Amino acid sequence: MRYLMTPDKTPSAWFNVAPHLPEPLSPPLHPGTGEPVGPDDLAPLFPMALIGQEMSAEPWIDIPGEVLDILRLWRPTPLVRARRLEQALDTPARIYFKDESVSPAGSHKPNTAVAQAYYNKAEGIGRISSETGAGQWGSALSFACQLFGLECFVYMVAASYHQKPYRRVMMETWGGQVVPSPSDLTQAGKAVLARDPDTGGSLGIAISEAVEDAATHPDTHYSLGSVLNHVLLHQTVIGLEAKQQLEQAGEGLPDVVLGSCGGGSNLAGLALPFVPDCGGANNGSGPRLVAVEPSSCPTLTEGRFEYDFGDEAGMTPKILMYTLGHEFIPPPIHAGGLRYHGDAPIICNLVKNGWMEAIAYPQGKVFEAAVQFARAQGPIPAPETAHAIRAAIDEALAAKEAGEERVILFNYSGHGLLDLAAYDAYLHGQLVDV
Amino acid sequence: MRYLMTPDKTPSAWFNVAPHLPEPLSPPLHPGTGEPVGPDDLAPLFPMALIGQEMSAEPWIDIPGEVLDILRLWRPTPLVRARRLEQALDTPARIYFKDESVSPAGSHKPNTAVAQAYYNKAEGIGRISSETGAGQWGSALSFACQLFGLECFVYMVAASYHQKPYRRVMMETWGGQVVPSPSDLTQAGKAVLARDPDTGGSLGIAISEAVEDAATHPDTHYSLGSVLNHVLLHQTVIGLEAKQQLEQAGEGLPDVVLGSCGGGSNLAGLALPFVPDCGGANNGSGPRLVAVEPSSCPTLTEGRFEYDFGDEAGMTPKILMYTLGHEFIPPPIHAGGLRYHGDAPIICNLVKNGWMEAIAYPQGKVFEAAVQFARAQGPIPAPETAHAIRAAIDEALAAKEAGEERVILFNYSGHGLLDLAAYDAYLHGQLVDV
Repeated sequence: MRYLMTPDKTPSAWFNVAPHLPEPLSPPLHPGTGEPVGPDDLAPLFPMALIGQEMSAEPWIDIPGEVLDILRLWRPTPLVRARRLEQALDTPARIYFKDESVSPAGSHKPNTAVAQAYYNKAEGIGRISSETGAGQWGSALSFACQLFGLECFVYMVAASYHQKPYRRVMMETWGGQVVPSPSDLTQAGKAVLARDPDTGGSLGIAISEAVEDAATHPDTHYSLGSVLNHVLLHQTVIGLEAKQQLEQAGEGLPDVVLGSCGGGSNLAGLALPFVPDCGGANNGSGPRLVAVEPSSCPTLTEGRFEYDFGDEAGMTPKILMYTLGHEFIPPPIHAGGLRYHGDAPIICNLVKNGWMEAIAYPQGKVFEAAVQFARAQGPIPAPETAHAIRAAIDEALAAKEAGEERVILFNYSGHGLLDLAAYDAYLHGQLVDV
Repeated sequence: MRYLMTPDKTPSAWFNVAPHLPEPLSPPLHPGTGEPVGPDDLAPLFPMALIGQEMSAEPWIDIPGEVLDILRLWRPTPLVRARRLEQALDTPARIYFKDESVSPAGSHKPNTAVAQAYYNKAEGIGRISSETGAGQWGSALSFACQLFGLECFVYMVAASYHQKPYRRVMMETWGGQVVPSPSDLTQAGKAVLARDPDTGGSLGIAISEAVEDAATHPDTHYSLGSVLNHVLLHQTVIGLEAKQQLEQAGEGLPDVVLGSCGGGSNLAGLALPFVPDCGGANNGSGPRLVAVEPSSCPTLTEGRFEYDFGDEAGMTPKILMYTLGHEFIPPPIHAGGLRYHGDAPIICNLVKNGWMEAIAYPQGKVFEAAVQFARAQGPIPAPETAHAIRAAIDEALAAKEAGEERVILFNYSGHGLLDLAAYDAYLHGQLVDV
């Protein structure tokens, strides 16, 4: 069963979780001085409107009409009850997922890419630089820039650039320019290439290059697809819609809300609107919020809670988060979008204070869940998304064990149609299980 | 703007165009005797329910509840008004498309795959054999068989099997078994391999193998993804929904209905429900129906209208259609789904009698339209679908030239996410323009 809403029901304001957090967010620190950064420090990289959102304490922030016009090309996304999966598991649980894979780029990423392109355009910027790992973010940003007539320049982690050319082609189809990172276009890239000419790159290095690009090119800003407060803010349309659609489905609050977690944006998009209802805020009476991460990049489950850089080269402000260290390079798992050493400060704040749980899975168990889902329901999920599916299946089996009718909600953050090589490896016993 | 309908609004009966055709369909002829084939001749290959539908003159045929339950996983599909494309073209035309790409397999093909799997299961069949070119049909059938617990065995044109492995992986993810065709599993395949061991195969050869497989394996039936009357029947949900959604949009009948045409099933699915309203039936007062085919496989625009085999080896019944000859092997264009020497008899009947037009485009102009669409609207279309888009854009430009507010409806039959290599070739000037 799918619960649909007409385009005019797309939320008209973003939900800002800041006033609802268990404790205030700690400020980012300048990488040089170690002092808290202010709006002026960020102005070379971001438009003032986004800097304002990054630091805002307003509970709701209006979505501009021009952004809504584009979001409505695919929003509201369907909320789907996975009845066939429930039947396959023989569980009394009711499993719902929010289908963010229906966007043109195939994931939740355009929710913020469109907003970021809009605010940059509105402030007269003509070009945006960014980085991408496996390519989900780069393709979302290329799409958004094309719609607003902005140039888009993407530093793509070299290993993915060469091994997964289709995301690169997708970006180019939308007019984006893509180079493998490290490149010789930046000092940061050159330094890495001098040390290791054959490196496959990393997300941290690509961020360093994109930030340097924006700082050294006229008319250019930088854009990040996760981690930052304003990015998570833009994703809250997911959870806001889901709440309405659960009501349509005759449900109250879910018992558990699940999302895969790399930088944290898809999880946050679904989960943050439930924070005011959640266990931490209501003495354990509300939904449990759960972050699902890969065992090979266990930021929330095994990282240290401390100030660290967002990138490899140490060019970004330091932020207070769970981190595996900014020089940590995760193994090349197929869920490229979850290979990040840190996590969004908002997510870390919730986990640190016990308002959100975290769990980690090795990729073998994740692909087992992905194939089980595809064979029961039809859609083939992204490897990132399959982390949430793994956890949803385990929650449903726990409900069966307990004989309880639990309501499980997870974010179907993207499809796996550009990840079929990973399925090939799994189905033919060639997946390295880390 | 998207016009949505809730799952319960999925049509509950298929529209049978047979009673509305300009002249009765001529019967298929037995390949050996040349006599008209009857139900008994077809029984080794198809369940009786489908044979009945193939020959039915009933105006409506009920969709079984078990089929509807599965169609409702993604149906009704959205009808989308392509406003951003209209703006890019600066046309007074209103362009609508029916988005069949939202099915799990990414095209309209599951509409019939699900029905065919159901009827086979209902008659006790445990295994289905079929062929696939680029893989759209094979993946739809694998998906459908998985949902009904049937084995699915697919002969995939060898060139595609080796060059485009991702559709093969998709089929395997849904539990399908896939071999490159020609194979050494059939006499038909062995004969071709003996003549030409390095052949890349063709759809005609793969059909021969799949038919032979069904005829020589116990518990096995054959399934075809286009051409036959019952296949086109199952696709009519597309046009039936579109009619309701156009009404929602405040439109009357469209001025022109467009679909790409290989075997004819996606075009038929959208267009057949408009036949009773169409020009031929109403002295030119209704919508124009237009088939769009590749210049390199110009069946309707340059083929002969005569009895011909459906496959390469001459194992199938002969059918009366436009044909380029059953031994014709089209050049390896990227729209693999349009590389067929013949066309559905129903489509040919309409074209022969002047109730439907046909137009052909070379693939360079088709990809130009595909990229223009992607950059204006977002979604990246399948190369097959892009044929309809090319024609829709040209219709919109003609409306602009004439200063007329025309309503254009086309079938967005599938997404191009597994065809990005073709976009790569086009964007980098490496597309062979045939």
